[in-house]
Amino acid sequence: MRATLPAVSDLKEWYRLHQREILEDYFTFLKFPSLSTDPAYKLSVRETALWLKEFLQKCGLCAELWETTGHPVVFASLLHAGPDRPTLLFYAHYDVQPVDPIGEWHSDPFDPVLKEGKVYARGASDNKGQCFYTLCAIRAYLELMKESAVNIKVFIEGEEEIGSLGTAGILASKEKELKSDYLFLLDFGISNAHSPAVMMGMRGLLSLEVTVQNSAIDLHSGVHGGMALNPNHALLSALSKMWTESGRIAIPGFFDDVALPAQEELDRYDLSFDPVSYKNKFGIKACIPTPGASLLESNWFYPSLDVNGMYGGYCGEGFKTVIPAKARAKISCRLVPHQDPHKIAEALTAFLKNHLSENLHVEIKILQQHASYRAAWDTNVVKISKEAYEEVFSKECRYLLCGATVPLVPKLAFYSGGEAALIGVALDSDDMHAPNEHFDLERFEKGFLVIGRILISCSSFS
Amino acid sequence: MRATLPAVSDLKEWYRLHQREILEDYFTFLKFPSLSTDPAYKLSVRETALWLKEFLQKCGLCAELWETTGHPVVFASLLHAGPDRPTLLFYAHYDVQPVDPIGEWHSDPFDPVLKEGKVYARGASDNKGQCFYTLCAIRAYLELMKESAVNIKVFIEGEEEIGSLGTAGILASKEKELKSDYLFLLDFGISNAHSPAVMMGMRGLLSLEVTVQNSAIDLHSGVHGGMALNPNHALLSALSKMWTESGRIAIPGFFDDVALPAQEELDRYDLSFDPVSYKNKFGIKACIPTPGASLLESNWFYPSLDVNGMYGGYCGEGFKTVIPAKARAKISCRLVPHQDPHKIAEALTAFLKNHLSENLHVEIKILQQHASYRAAWDTNVVKISKEAYEEVFSKECRYLLCGATVPLVPKLAFYSGGEAALIGVALDSDDMHAPNEHFDLERFEKGFLVIGRILISCSSFS
Repeated sequence: MRATLPAVSDLKEWYRLHQREILEDYFTFLKFPSLSTDPAYKLSVRETALWLKEFLQKCGLCAELWETTGHPVVFASLLHAGPDRPTLLFYAHYDVQPVDPIGEWHSDPFDPVLKEGKVYARGASDNKGQCFYTLCAIRAYLELMKESAVNIKVFIEGEEEIGSLGTAGILASKEKELKSDYLFLLDFGISNAHSPAVMMGMRGLLSLEVTVQNSAIDLHSGVHGGMALNPNHALLSALSKMWTESGRIAIPGFFDDVALPAQEELDRYDLSFDPVSYKNKFGIKACIPTPGASLLESNWFYPSLDVNGMYGGYCGEGFKTVIPAKARAKISCRLVPHQDPHKIAEALTAFLKNHLSENLHVEIKILQQHASYRAAWDTNVVKISKEAYEEVFSKECRYLLCGATVPLVPKLAFYSGGEAALIGVALDSDDMHAPNEHFDLERFEKGFLVIGRILISCSSFS
Repeated sequence: MRATLPAVSDLKEWYRLHQREILEDYFTFLKFPSLSTDPAYKLSVRETALWLKEFLQKCGLCAELWETTGHPVVFASLLHAGPDRPTLLFYAHYDVQPVDPIGEWHSDPFDPVLKEGKVYARGASDNKGQCFYTLCAIRAYLELMKESAVNIKVFIEGEEEIGSLGTAGILASKEKELKSDYLFLLDFGISNAHSPAVMMGMRGLLSLEVTVQNSAIDLHSGVHGGMALNPNHALLSALSKMWTESGRIAIPGFFDDVALPAQEELDRYDLSFDPVSYKNKFGIKACIPTPGASLLESNWFYPSLDVNGMYGGYCGEGFKTVIPAKARAKISCRLVPHQDPHKIAEALTAFLKNHLSENLHVEIKILQQHASYRAAWDTNVVKISKEAYEEVFSKECRYLLCGATVPLVPKLAFYSGGEAALIGVALDSDDMHAPNEHFDLERFEKGFLVIGRILISCSSFS
């Protein structure tokens, strides 16, 4: 082991020397269309995993693929430091969101483009960008240290965007491999480019798909209009009843278990939020927070309900006078602590069935059920993360919550058995899940430095 | 002129001798993807028109294309019989409906397949099938007669499925060419394969598209859920208000001008209709007729309102947790006599705007506005058609109405100045506008015989 540990300035120097190589590898990573939701891309997803495995091996870790019923996990470890030294587990994901509406991209989502310091590609931020600066930081740390003073484990899944069903299924059998002191979950962000933050929790997710069918085939709306019930009408009528006239969620029991944080906890969060700049940033015209809550409180402390997709009939250019056989909607809820995803799924299913005619064929498929998560306050891992952020950003680190969901977090925290920190440098304005997703290289470097600084901090533990 | 006119048996013999050639040409016609609604097929539409023009020339008519702001009209005429003889104008269309959902076709919609006496292809029935047996009948008549005893005009448009906007625009300038004594509109049908019928009218059509936008880009439903208004919610809420809880159309003023036919008129229609066999035929589970009306009365005598397409957010495989920037619906009304399409368009537009938040960007595009049509009773043209049907089918001809719309009918009837008959041998079960559209060759031949018999009847007029 080196007598003196490297400093952040050493990490910066390493980054400067390897900048070109980092960018090349990052672009290679982004070029894989690792779309986990679409079965047509199954092979591409695996190729991405194999590339990552090789990359981790080149960094000096032992890497392997863990097969699941879905897409494989890339797991890598370097345990030379020995059982007396701290073990760090880093989590990220290599799968990405679909790219549609494809017409709104200014460049090919899988042919990354560097423009004015920003990399444009699907996954540039979520989560290939965050994943890759983490791997680069591990590599830099290992090269600067010569010999690692901590045990390092890396867990990169390929199912984050589709609910981690297969991945969750293998965790129990990998408990030994996952065991760690500190779990760093690299799929989170900060509220603006200059203000570092540790996230203390996230909302859960319930998603389902409802299909309503009346006729066996699509019908001509002239020949059948006024006779056959239109499943579009049945579906939109049922969906519209999910909210009251004033926009409050009307599913019976939906809010039963929602409890607001105690004042003491509330006081620790950075609740500063400017609705005007928020609306300007995304070109949003209308907001509809939970009654009685500010926009940010609504997103952090309350559940939400969204129709993420609805379709029935002719959706192309021009017109087609059709009464479709089927109409379908994709619906999701974000859940807060104490809300049981299974209980909410039952309430929502019962509500929809109740409002859809018994005469129609109704199919409701529950797709994802993930609980929310809260990290413990005042742990070592939060302290280390906070210090790393503050050194790299030269600014006080805040505490935030995340309105979104990383499905595996509660389960991975459980099986690792370690203290968990929800970190990262993503921004809402990275257009994750939207056309023209991007990530700027300045933040990429900062993320790299934060992870490097965390590794160095842990190395100093006696 | 022949001393004796040919009989239906002569037509049958001619058909038998030319059967193979007819089928070959019919298949060639069906192979053109003449999708009028999709700009990508503009050239294919024109190629179809050029093929028809050539076919009509081979039959001995003078044929030409009439350019419009949309797709061209194929017009052909043979006026050798002279001004003292009757002039017959035949109307059909060569454009077809879109083919989606393409996955539900059992064969390529533009590669016709003959299976158990039925031809499967887009347009097999609507309207290439009906158009083509008409052209074959004209050819047979001319060959059997040696010299035509009537003047023949043929008008085949390429915009029926998209509202005939360009076609309607040239009618006034073609008044002289369109002038005729009898107008046969070949885009109608019968209620079952063995019962001939003349249609005495059709409903009108109003169609529009409403787009609701909130944010400039698609938003992540975790990051923004509970803050940004989801345009899917705004749209489905507004659409759901178009009906009362019991399913009656709730647009103010919608029914104001609706008047039921007098009892005398009602008595002449064949109102026999079996709801059970109707539902079985199309696999329909639920019907929702206008309150107080039977299914058939609802389709014939009352206006209807349908959401023909709605979509917003992710509609593909799997899931995408998105709050879409935009949501859109395609809506149409079928209108009855005395309802003014412009007045209903205004009422519907005002209703939707009224129920969509002023804070959202709302765009409403009126696409089609066509009045309904009623033919006169007891005209020569209805009498000739009825007799032709009865001879060919050996069964009494009924009087029906059509719930669907052929947009050009009222305008073409006006400019031709002649008596109009809405005829054809299509069936609702031909799956027009749906996957696996088909037409059976037995009915194709009957249609051919009906048109041939009509031509012969008119030739006997002194």
